[in-house]
Amino acid sequence: MLTYAGHMSTPTLLPLTENVVCRAPLTRQPLDAGQAVDLARLLKALADPARLRLLSIVAASEGQQACVCDLTEPVGLSQPTISHHLKVLMEAGFLSRSKRGTWAYYALVPGALDSVATVLVTA
Amino acid sequence: MLTYAGHMSTPTLLPLTENVVCRAPLTRQPLDAGQAVDLARLLKALADPARLRLLSIVAASEGQQACVCDLTEPVGLSQPTISHHLKVLMEAGFLSRSKRGTWAYYALVPGALDSVATVLVTA
Repeated sequence: MLTYAGHMSTPTLLPLTENVVCRAPLTRQPLDAGQAVDLARLLKALADPARLRLLSIVAASEGQQACVCDLTEPVGLSQPTISHHLKVLMEAGFLSRSKRGTWAYYALVPGALDSVATVLVTA
Repeated sequence: MLTYAGHMSTPTLLPLTENVVCRAPLTRQPLDAGQAVDLARLLKALADPARLRLLSIVAASEGQQACVCDLTEPVGLSQPTISHHLKVLMEAGFLSRSKRGTWAYYALVPGALDSVATVLVTA
């Protein structure tokens, strides 16, 4: 789920969220078709109760990161289901993953959620 | 798509967005199951390219309102499809509708998009 950031001088593959962060709020000017598709994809990645809970647990954890071992129990879903949701959040650019010993840790990608929030703010 | 706002002293039916506006950002504390379901429903209403374009046209119009007659052509969809998307946005509490003569006008509901943005902001 990478997108070509056509507004940059050097062509680079960036996570979808990077493309959104360059945009003005909805109230400033209407979205064009491509922008609407990108933003809808980000919102779809967020628009699931389990993914929102996982994201909020990571976001509210110290240093905005959490061990996968602390994510399964509060959400009450199976490990494969949790893994699927975490993968969707990573592919959309909201979470990053690192390994420490036997455990995987998930961290909030700085600015990713804010880039979506910025587009939605009307004030 | 109305929800019971259990946090208020007088039981009242409120649009879904009213329930979200009372919540702190994701980084403050994890969402509980009910909050995650409500927020996911709002994000799902937004997570469609045509709905995002319609919403952005209304949001960027003078007075944050637009005649339905000005919404069909830029989005390039049939009138019934446009009507369906506008209905979803109204039911979620993002748009309101009023009639003037033969035309329907859609207006951005003040604070509705911001209530979603507030939850997503991490900074």
